Amino acid sequence: AIVEALLGAYEVGSDARTDLAGRRVLMTVGPTREAIDPVRFIGNRSSGKMGYALAEALRARGARVTLIAGPTSASAPVGINRVDVESALEMEAAVMARAADCDLFVATAAVADYRPVCAADSKLKKSADEMTLRLVRNPDILARVAALPTPPFTVGFAAETEDPEGYARGKLAAKRLSLIAANRVGAGPGGFESDENALLCLWPDGGRRELPLMSKPALAKALADLIAERYAKRDATSLAS
Amino acid sequence: AIVEALLGAYEVGSDARTDLAGRRVLMTVGPTREAIDPVRFIGNRSSGKMGYALAEALRARGARVTLIAGPTSASAPVGINRVDVESALEMEAAVMARAADCDLFVATAAVADYRPVCAADSKLKKSADEMTLRLVRNPDILARVAALPTPPFTVGFAAETEDPEGYARGKLAAKRLSLIAANRVGAGPGGFESDENALLCLWPDGGRRELPLMSKPALAKALADLIAERYAKRDATSLAS
Repeated sequence: AIVEALLGAYEVGSDARTDLAGRRVLMTVGPTREAIDPVRFIGNRSSGKMGYALAEALRARGARVTLIAGPTSASAPVGINRVDVESALEMEAAVMARAADCDLFVATAAVADYRPVCAADSKLKKSADEMTLRLVRNPDILARVAALPTPPFTVGFAAETEDPEGYARGKLAAKRLSLIAANRVGAGPGGFESDENALLCLWPDGGRRELPLMSKPALAKALADLIAERYAKRDATSLAS
Repeated sequence: AIVEALLGAYEVGSDARTDLAGRRVLMTVGPTREAIDPVRFIGNRSSGKMGYALAEALRARGARVTLIAGPTSASAPVGINRVDVESALEMEAAVMARAADCDLFVATAAVADYRPVCAADSKLKKSADEMTLRLVRNPDILARVAALPTPPFTVGFAAETEDPEGYARGKLAAKRLSLIAANRVGAGPGGFESDENALLCLWPDGGRRELPLMSKPALAKALADLIAERYAKRDATSLAS
């Protein structure tokens, strides 16, 4: 047991970099659920695995991580501050209450774009053969954080089934993000509910790095490397843009 | 270890009843997910815990249980036949392929009443401030099974926020079920996502039994007792009705 403890300490020591030491990282993770009535909801297939793996990778670099977490079945990492929320509006409130006090904001959550106009208080009765559900846009939490007077370093994600690079480049510019990571979902391996993933990372002024298909923990470490690297160069980027 | 094994065997022996020995039980469990597009879906809060606990309680009485299971985060019991499905249509197909060959059908799943008219092949783009989602009724799996020429003993559940007894009595009669168990969700303890529950059980000709708030495993045993009791009297009931 002593040998294991020494080896464990050695591995942590050899793996740890401290380039994010003391940096305050606010992260969203998991899906949101938008209530239709007390039992039904609109959800999405985000497992939260990538977000949790990234939280661990950033903490391993010395960052002080706070998670705002939607309902996931993945096991949350132990020992990391976590605030559980369910809907996009709850996630927005939890983020905006803390966004002014963070150095980096990493938006891994798959926030529902729309919610039902009003959730019913009691379970809806099934009667008609067809029904329509009226939906209204949810707030764009990442855009709100990036638009703060002195925004943190913002990292976004794009999960599109078609033209992920073009879509991600547009989102990066439109929301004035510091970094965006695009993956392909609903086609081939990787993405939601998978244990593996691949990412294409983009940053302003045409910066670009491919992170090939690998396990989510390995990919999270590679992405944490890139986040730390781009964060270190943040002032140069903002001067150049 | 030998003492533990002996005690274990003794406990199983003392607890086990064999009144369902060899009976083939087909059960549905968990929620269904109805795809809106490759990443979004309509889900519900069924945890599957009650269904899994009931499957174990019925197996402990000697039944041969087959589960048709929607996506749940609860751990499925080991050693029980299970067929994983996602949507109501998939659940219906899996059930109807097996319904003629079972003695009891126990419908614990919270099947979505509606599904989107057509699921989009690629992820829907967010553009408008509002949108409407057109939904169409899903098949009523329990009613289809109960309407078979020689139906199995059918057990249904009712999870209503208002007047559970009146609603359950109506559902029992309309679908010609053998037994129905009603619980109250979205109000107070018990129900979906809870570890405890209470049930009001009804059967034809005014039969009625309250199973008070208790842990889901304990409640599952009490319900399995009642199912076995009512199943033993099935011929008397059908003669009387």
